[in-house]
Amino acid sequence: MCEASAYLKQADKETLIMEAVDKVEPDENGIRLVSIFGDQKFIKGRIHSLSLVDHKVFIQPE
Amino acid sequence: MCEASAYLKQADKETLIMEAVDKVEPDENGIRLVSIFGDQKFIKGRIHSLSLVDHKVFIQPE
Repeated sequence: MCEASAYLKQADKETLIMEAVDKVEPDENGIRLVSIFGDQKFIKGRIHSLSLVDHKVFIQPE
Repeated sequence: MCEASAYLKQADKETLIMEAVDKVEPDENGIRLVSIFGDQKFIKGRIHSLSLVDHKVFIQPE
């Protein structure tokens, strides 16, 4: 399985937001994360970068 | 390996842009894609959505 972990990326640290993320859906106000278990979180921010081989999604808070 | 394929998402179709994508780095003007082989492409657009379990990155052209 190729789900990823989502991290909040701040100046000097990365904070784990959610593990086992499947869907990532940005909209005007932020980013919806949906895990493989169906859990959802909505984060105010934008996608900073993805590192897919490392299974990491980085989100920059706004 | 959990690289993905990147698709350009338009109204009624999805066009493959790049396979084996590792890094995805949005900036003000578009999105840089870097494959596991080091190939790079820069696409004018924004991330529409990710479906990580399906290994898919959808980009909406701007």
